[in-house]
Amino acid sequence: MIGVGVIGYGYWGPNLVRNFADSPDCKVVGVCDRSPRRLQLAARRYPGLFTTLQPNELIERTDVDAIAIATPVNSHLGLAQMVLAAGKHVLIEKPLASSSAEAEALIEEAERRSRVLMVDHTFLYTGAVRKIKQLLDSGELGTCCYYDSVRVNLGLFQPDVNVIWDLAVHDLAIMDYLLPGEASAVSATGMGHLAGCSQSIAYMTCFFNDSLIAHVHVNWLSPMKIRRTLLGGNRKMVVYDDVEPSEKVKIYDRGVSVAAGPDSIYQQLIEYRMGDMYAPQLDTREALSVEVAEFARCIQSGDKPLSDGLTGLRVIRLLEAATQSMLQRGNPVELPNRSLKNDSLSGLAN
Amino acid sequence: MIGVGVIGYGYWGPNLVRNFADSPDCKVVGVCDRSPRRLQLAARRYPGLFTTLQPNELIERTDVDAIAIATPVNSHLGLAQMVLAAGKHVLIEKPLASSSAEAEALIEEAERRSRVLMVDHTFLYTGAVRKIKQLLDSGELGTCCYYDSVRVNLGLFQPDVNVIWDLAVHDLAIMDYLLPGEASAVSATGMGHLAGCSQSIAYMTCFFNDSLIAHVHVNWLSPMKIRRTLLGGNRKMVVYDDVEPSEKVKIYDRGVSVAAGPDSIYQQLIEYRMGDMYAPQLDTREALSVEVAEFARCIQSGDKPLSDGLTGLRVIRLLEAATQSMLQRGNPVELPNRSLKNDSLSGLAN
Amino acid sequence: MIGVGVIGYGYWGPNLVRNFADSPDCKVVGVCDRSPRRLQLAARRYPGLFTTLQPNELIERTDVDAIAIATPVNSHLGLAQMVLAAGKHVLIEKPLASSSAEAEALIEEAERRSRVLMVDHTFLYTGAVRKIKQLLDSGELGTCCYYDSVRVNLGLFQPDVNVIWDLAVHDLAIMDYLLPGEASAVSATGMGHLAGCSQSIAYMTCFFNDSLIAHVHVNWLSPMKIRRTLLGGNRKMVVYDDVEPSEKVKIYDRGVSVAAGPDSIYQQLIEYRMGDMYAPQLDTREALSVEVAEFARCIQSGDKPLSDGLTGLRVIRLLEAATQSMLQRGNPVELPNRSLKNDSLSGLAN
Amino acid sequence: MIGVGVIGYGYWGPNLVRNFADSPDCKVVGVCDRSPRRLQLAARRYPGLFTTLQPNELIERTDVDAIAIATPVNSHLGLAQMVLAAGKHVLIEKPLASSSAEAEALIEEAERRSRVLMVDHTFLYTGAVRKIKQLLDSGELGTCCYYDSVRVNLGLFQPDVNVIWDLAVHDLAIMDYLLPGEASAVSATGMGHLAGCSQSIAYMTCFFNDSLIAHVHVNWLSPMKIRRTLLGGNRKMVVYDDVEPSEKVKIYDRGVSVAAGPDSIYQQLIEYRMGDMYAPQLDTREALSVEVAEFARCIQSGDKPLSDGLTGLRVIRLLEAATQSMLQRGNPVELPNRSLKNDSLSGLAN
Repeated sequence: MIGVGVIGYGYWGPNLVRNFADSPDCKVVGVCDRSPRRLQLAARRYPGLFTTLQPNELIERTDVDAIAIATPVNSHLGLAQMVLAAGKHVLIEKPLASSSAEAEALIEEAERRSRVLMVDHTFLYTGAVRKIKQLLDSGELGTCCYYDSVRVNLGLFQPDVNVIWDLAVHDLAIMDYLLPGEASAVSATGMGHLAGCSQSIAYMTCFFNDSLIAHVHVNWLSPMKIRRTLLGGNRKMVVYDDVEPSEKVKIYDRGVSVAAGPDSIYQQLIEYRMGDMYAPQLDTREALSVEVAEFARCIQSGDKPLSDGLTGLRVIRLLEAATQSMLQRGNPVELPNRSLKNDSLSGLAN
Repeated sequence: MIGVGVIGYGYWGPNLVRNFADSPDCKVVGVCDRSPRRLQLAARRYPGLFTTLQPNELIERTDVDAIAIATPVNSHLGLAQMVLAAGKHVLIEKPLASSSAEAEALIEEAERRSRVLMVDHTFLYTGAVRKIKQLLDSGELGTCCYYDSVRVNLGLFQPDVNVIWDLAVHDLAIMDYLLPGEASAVSATGMGHLAGCSQSIAYMTCFFNDSLIAHVHVNWLSPMKIRRTLLGGNRKMVVYDDVEPSEKVKIYDRGVSVAAGPDSIYQQLIEYRMGDMYAPQLDTREALSVEVAEFARCIQSGDKPLSDGLTGLRVIRLLEAATQSMLQRGNPVELPNRSLKNDSLSGLAN
Repeated sequence: MIGVGVIGYGYWGPNLVRNFADSPDCKVVGVCDRSPRRLQLAARRYPGLFTTLQPNELIERTDVDAIAIATPVNSHLGLAQMVLAAGKHVLIEKPLASSSAEAEALIEEAERRSRVLMVDHTFLYTGAVRKIKQLLDSGELGTCCYYDSVRVNLGLFQPDVNVIWDLAVHDLAIMDYLLPGEASAVSATGMGHLAGCSQSIAYMTCFFNDSLIAHVHVNWLSPMKIRRTLLGGNRKMVVYDDVEPSEKVKIYDRGVSVAAGPDSIYQQLIEYRMGDMYAPQLDTREALSVEVAEFARCIQSGDKPLSDGLTGLRVIRLLEAATQSMLQRGNPVELPNRSLKNDSLSGLAN
Repeated sequence: MIGVGVIGYGYWGPNLVRNFADSPDCKVVGVCDRSPRRLQLAARRYPGLFTTLQPNELIERTDVDAIAIATPVNSHLGLAQMVLAAGKHVLIEKPLASSSAEAEALIEEAERRSRVLMVDHTFLYTGAVRKIKQLLDSGELGTCCYYDSVRVNLGLFQPDVNVIWDLAVHDLAIMDYLLPGEASAVSATGMGHLAGCSQSIAYMTCFFNDSLIAHVHVNWLSPMKIRRTLLGGNRKMVVYDDVEPSEKVKIYDRGVSVAAGPDSIYQQLIEYRMGDMYAPQLDTREALSVEVAEFARCIQSGDKPLSDGLTGLRVIRLLEAATQSMLQRGNPVELPNRSLKNDSLSGLAN
C-alpha cells in the first residue's frame, strides 16, 4: 500500500484526495494547505486524516511514500525538490514547472534519485484521448493533416500566468501525445484585456512539417464553454467534443483526394468522400483514477509514466515559444531541433 | 421596374434569379452561362427567359438595367467593366475582385459613371448580423474586446484561390461591418494539403488597437460544418451560431472586471458576472431578398449600398495581407494606415 | 412530358410547382388558387404560366395530364373527384380526405378509371426514412419493440381539424411504412386550449401486438420545434432527429437482453449492450423531388405508388380512432381487424 | 451536530454519505449495507466510519439522530418503521413506499412520534425546478396549459417495479410541486419487453381540469438519454432540459391567442407571439446538498420539509392509478377527489 500525501487542497486537490482514497493501491495519509479553512474541510470529509500547514511535516512522514502537488505553478520547483530530496515519488499538477530550465532540473533530480516524476496531464488518461490514439496507431485515420483545438470559457483568471499556461497546456499535452514528431516552430498571437494581467485570449500555430499543422485557441473571456478538437487524417477525420455528455468522439469517413488524371490539377478530379460517421463507446472511468493507477504502477515497477518529466518539458517549451511569439505579434519562433521524444534528458546533455 | 440580367447560373446564380424574380421592384430578363446545360435548366424553370452564352448579348439588351455577376472571381473585373461601360448597375459576387488594384479600378469606374457598384456580402443582410450591429450601436455590449470567427466544413475546393479568399471573406465582411476602425496588421498561418492547390486551412489574426483583436479560422477539410462567431464586449458577449436552426444569436450577461482596490492585482478583486442569457427573435427573411431590395433601392435613389465597392476593397486588402503573412509563417504584415472607412477612394487618390 | 396543374398556391403549393418545374418528366401548365394575390405571385415567378381562379378551367385543359391538390382537407374529395372524372391522375396533399368513407370513395373511383391516386406523404420519400426502412428490412435492427415519435412546434392553427389530423398524420404515415402489421387499437388523450378550436395537444398510443407499441406526441403550442423518432429494435435502436442539420439518423448498438440462467429473473442476468453509434450518410435529395419522380413513374408505368390511396386510408382510420378515443379520455378504440396492408380495397368490399 | 446513519451503500448511498459529510450541520456516524464489499469501499473512503450489516445496530446507536434509507422500495416500510420506533428522523429514497397504504402508515407513525419524515424527491431541490416554481408563482408564465415530460435512457432494469415506479416518480414529483391542484384521473399505456419483467416503456396522461393536461413518457430502453420537460403557460413557455450542461431552463416569450373580433373563429384572428427567449442563471449547488440542508433545518425546527410524507403519498397514488390504467390499455382511472395538498393525512382520516 502506497502512502500518499497531497499538498494543495484548493480546486484540484480534493479530486486527487478522492481518487487516491478510492484506489486499492494507495492510502491517503495527509493533506497540506496554506489555508486552515481548507484543512478543516478536508478533515470534516475524512475524519482521521493528518492535516498540516507545513509541507515538510507531510513530506517527511515515514508513512508517506509519494506526494501529489496541486499548488500554483511557481511553487512546483521548490516543493518537488523537497519531495525528491526526501526520496519520495512525486506527481505534479500541470504545467510541470515555471520554465523549461526548472523542468530540466526536476527531471535530472528524479533520474539521479530514481524516483517517479509524473506530470498531471489528465486528458491523456481519458477514454476519449486514448481511443483517438488507438485510431491513429492502427492507421484508421491515415496520415495526420491537421490538429485544431479550442478550449474557451469564462475562466478563473490567474494573474501570474497567461491563458496559454493555464488552458493551452491541456491541448498541447494531448497534441504531444497524439501527433508524431515535434513542432519545429510556433507562431502565436494574443491580447490581454484586464489591467495588470497578461494575455486572456491567445491563438497559436505549431508548424510540424510540410503537411502537418496544429492550432490551439484558448480564451478566458468566452461566454460559453467550448472544448472541441478537430483532427484531420487523410483517410478519416475525428471530432472530439469534450462538452458533449456522450459521444464525445466522432469519426467521420470524410475527405478529399486528388485523383491522378491526364490533367490532374483541374477541379473535377478532386474527389470528395462523404461517408458514414460513427461514435465509439468510450471507457467512462474517471481520467484521474486511471492516472492514479498509472502513478501507482510506476512506483511499484520503476517504469516511466506515460506523462513523465520529458512530456512536461516538451509542453513547456511550446508555451515558452508561444509566449515569446505573442510579444512579436505572430513572428514565428523556432524550437530547438533536437528531439525530446525518443530521448532522455541525460542523453541530451551529452 | 428594374430589368435584371444574371451572369453565371452555377451554384449561386439560381438564388439570385429566384430572389430577383420574387422582388416587386425587379424583373429577371435573362441569364447567361458558359454551360448550355445550365441554360436549359434555367429555361425549364422559367419558361420565356432569355438565355445566352455571350455576356454582351445580355448586358447590351435595352430592357436590362442592371447585371448580377456570379462567376469565378478572376472574371469579375472584365465582366463588371463591360457592364459599367454599357452604363448599367452591377452587383458582384464576393470577393469583389482578384486584387485590390482591380477593386480600385472598378470603384473608380463606377464613380465616374455614377452607377451602383455593390458587392454581394450576403451576411450583412441577415437578421442575425443586423441584430448584432444594433446591439453594438446601442451600447448594450459595451466596448468590443475580441471577435472570433470559425467557418469550416468539407468544402468545394477552388483550385484558383486559397481558402481565405473563399470562406474568410464572409467573416471579414461581417467583421468590417461590425467593428469600429480598421485593422492595422495581420498575422496569418495556413497549410495546403492537396498537390497543386493552395492553402486549405488558414488562421488569421487582425490587430486593431491595444484592446481589440480579431481572429478567423477557415478550413475546407473539416468533417463537420461549424459557423460560429464569438464577440466579446466588456458589458455583454455574443455567440452567433449560424448552423443552429433557431436562436442563432445569444447574448450573455457575462464578463470579468477588475475592481479597484488597495492591492489591485490580487486575484480576489477580479469580479465575475454570470448572468442570464437571451436569444432575441430575429428577422427571418432570406438575406438575399433583403440585399436585392437594397440593390433596387440604391439604383432608384442613387444612394451608396451598405456593401459598396469600398467595403469590398477593404476586405480584399485583408485577404492580400493574410496571404502574404501565410508565406512567412505568421510574420505580421502591416496594412496601409489610411482609413478607407470614412473616406471615398477618390479622396484617397489625392 | 407530363402536363401538370397545381390547385392551391398557399403554403405547400409553391413547393409542388418548383419541384414539378425542375422534374425532367413534367411540365407545369398552370396554377389555380382562390386568391388573385397568390396567382399574381405565381405569375411573377413563372412568366407565361396559366393561372385561374376556377379549378375546372385548369383540370379540363387538354395539355394537363395530372393534377396536384394542395388545398384544405375538406375540399380534397370534391376536387379529386373532378380530376378523376376528367380522366386525369391526381396527387393529393395529406391527409387524403376528411374521413375514411371519403378516402374509400376516392380509391374506388381511381381504380375504376385506372388513374394514379397518390397521397403526398412526403416523409416516405426522405433519405432518412428510406434508410431506416432498409435497416429494418435487412434485419440489422432485429425485431421492432417500440416506435416513439414527437412532432411539436408553435404551429399554424387549423380551426377545422385537430392537431393529430395536421401533425400526427406524418408520424402515422412513417409508422405505417416502417412497421410490420397494423395497429389493432388506439388510446389517445388530448386537450384544446383556444375557444372554438379542437385539440391542440394530443398523445396517442397504437397497440400492435404483445411486443410492439407505438406512441405519437403532437403539439401546436410548443415553444420549440422537436421532431424526433425513437425506434427500438431488439438488436439495435434508431434515433431519427429531423431538426438536426446533419446526421439525422443515428443507429445505436445498444440494448438489453435477458440471459438464460438457473434463476433467470434476477437482475444480474439482464445484460446491457453499450456499443458504438453510427450515422449513415443519407440521400440528401429533396423529398418532394423524389416523390414527384415516383408520381411520374407511376403515371407512365401504371404501377401503384408507394404512397397510394390505401396508405392514405390506413392513416385516416388511425386518425379517426384517435379522435374518438380522445373524447373518452384514453379509452381504447379497436380498429377493424381486416388488414388493409396486403389487400386492395376492392378485395375488401367483397 | 446531527448524527446521521445511511442504510444502503449501492448506487445512491455514496451520494448521501458525501453530502452529509460535507454538511456543516451533520456528521456521518455509520453506514449499513447487506454487502460486505460495499462496506469495505465505504470504510476505505472514510477511515473511522462505523459499518455494519445489521440495520438495527446503526439505528440504535445513541449518536445517531437520523437515518437516510437508500434501499430497494420494498424494504422502505420495514426499515422506516424501525427508525421511527427508535425515535429517530428519517429521509427515504423515492418512491416513499410500495403502496399508498404503506405511505399512509409511515405518515401516521411520523406524526404520532413528531419525527421528520422526508422523501428524497431530489429534483425539487435543483436550481432549475426552483427557478421554474418562481416563474409560475410570480405570474410570469401565466396560467399553466400543459406539462409534458420525457425521461428516457438505457436504464438499469428493476425486476420488482415497472418503469413508472422508477423514472416517472421524478416527473410526477416535479409536476406535483409545480402545478396547482391535483390530477383527477389518469390514463396510461405501456409495454414490457423482457420476459418476467413488467413495463419498460410507459406513457401516462394526468387530467387536471378543463384547461390543464400533463403527460409523462418514461422508457428504460431508449438508446439515448433525454430528460426534457415542456411547460406551457398562456403567457410564456418553459423548456427544461436536464441533459444540457448549461442553460437548462429556457423561457420563451411565445404563444398563441385568439383575438376578439366580429367573426372570432376565423383563423386570421389567431395571433402568434414569437418573441425572445432567455435562460436565467441558475443556482448550481448540488441538489442533494440543498436537500440535506432542508432535512437538517426541519430536524432542528420541527417544520415539515418541502418533500414531506404527503408529497410522497400523492405521487404514489398517481403511480398506482397509472399501473392500473396500463392493464386496461389506457382506460382512465379516477383519483380520489379529496385533496391531499392543503390537508394533513390525519385530517383526511376523520
